[in-house]
Amino acid sequence: MSSDSSRIPAPAGTAGLRADALHNRERILAAAGEAFATIGIDVPMAAIARRAGVGMATLYRRFPTRESLITEVFADQLKACVSVVDDALADPDPWHGFRTVVEKLCAMQVADRGFTAAFLTAFPGAVDHERERVRAERGFAELTRRAKEAGRLRADFEQADLVLMLMANGGIAAGSAEDALTASRRLVAYLLQSFQAERAGGTVPLPPAPPFGLRHVPFLPPVGSAG
Amino acid sequence: MSSDSSRIPAPAGTAGLRADALHNRERILAAAGEAFATIGIDVPMAAIARRAGVGMATLYRRFPTRESLITEVFADQLKACVSVVDDALADPDPWHGFRTVVEKLCAMQVADRGFTAAFLTAFPGAVDHERERVRAERGFAELTRRAKEAGRLRADFEQADLVLMLMANGGIAAGSAEDALTASRRLVAYLLQSFQAERAGGTVPLPPAPPFGLRHVPFLPPVGSAG
Repeated sequence: MSSDSSRIPAPAGTAGLRADALHNRERILAAAGEAFATIGIDVPMAAIARRAGVGMATLYRRFPTRESLITEVFADQLKACVSVVDDALADPDPWHGFRTVVEKLCAMQVADRGFTAAFLTAFPGAVDHERERVRAERGFAELTRRAKEAGRLRADFEQADLVLMLMANGGIAAGSAEDALTASRRLVAYLLQSFQAERAGGTVPLPPAPPFGLRHVPFLPPVGSAG
Repeated sequence: MSSDSSRIPAPAGTAGLRADALHNRERILAAAGEAFATIGIDVPMAAIARRAGVGMATLYRRFPTRESLITEVFADQLKACVSVVDDALADPDPWHGFRTVVEKLCAMQVADRGFTAAFLTAFPGAVDHERERVRAERGFAELTRRAKEAGRLRADFEQADLVLMLMANGGIAAGSAEDALTASRRLVAYLLQSFQAERAGGTVPLPPAPPFGLRHVPFLPPVGSAG
């Protein structure tokens, strides 16, 4: 075994880092991921440094802003999220694709409360996040269009209803972690049954949708905001 | 006009209070009501004293515990909540009664985030709250039974689903206040359409309900808990 890191492919943004710097970087990312998931993305930077066992100077040298840390921590998960939408677009059954996206996004949200907050909150500095979010949003719009065209999704379903559902699911995720997944699955099943065109016939019209868009709605309350 | 307060009926717990003490009591209740509604029931007692313009000693002389303050502030609203259920029980149409309870409770939750947290969180010291909560729970169980018997509510709806819905609605209530009522109305409309027996036929079975009961589930995250 060699400690020469130039012989293994370096992760993006790590080129030229010495082994100890790389080690610190990994510890910070692990600590931040854990803190974001369990507490939320507003966890103090000092708490992340403490968990990682590094000083504040080291933390800020590696990640000058909270946004840069969030972008890096959630990069894989954001890709997973986009690929959930991409997979659904490749599904020959538009309704199956639509419901799979809904089920997977809600399950991801319950599993990691930091992730969806990061996904839905606008970070001006996080260019990659913004691009991926727009891509996910457009992909979901296309899925919605196809599922309606196939006559499986009710015509009055709106894009904002996805955000509405993620907000509602966020209320479940914020409760007792133990039963959150069970509760979320049941909520999603109820909503999907209501979204189906076959069951929407003859119902009274829905009240208007709220003006929600993925990029504007932070749906988990910032933890500790009133502390 | 006389300042002799013995000539007008005194509110419960105020007998023998001098006019200035009564005035302080009212200021504290008004400040606490506002703080519970906008911040949550975990708002520091010192913040309530500050809003009311009284000292901590005065606050604690009137309300020795946070629970006693909560019980008093929410007494009227809790009665309103119980009477929503009572009115529904008097409704000759069980489904109309059921859906009215659901709609009103969710609207109350959005209007006042402190109230439903108080309603759903167990306060060991608040005997009156406990009794009223049990009464509301039994009343809702009876409404559920009747709506199912009338063939309007799907057979696999469970009591826990009311809590599930209040948790989901809490996620909406936690978002931007401006659009919360619009969003909540749409969520409730979707869920009620799914709860209807007429639309449940032929659907795949629901995943199991979570083990939620009104008395055990605090569904709004304590504000500032990680501060």
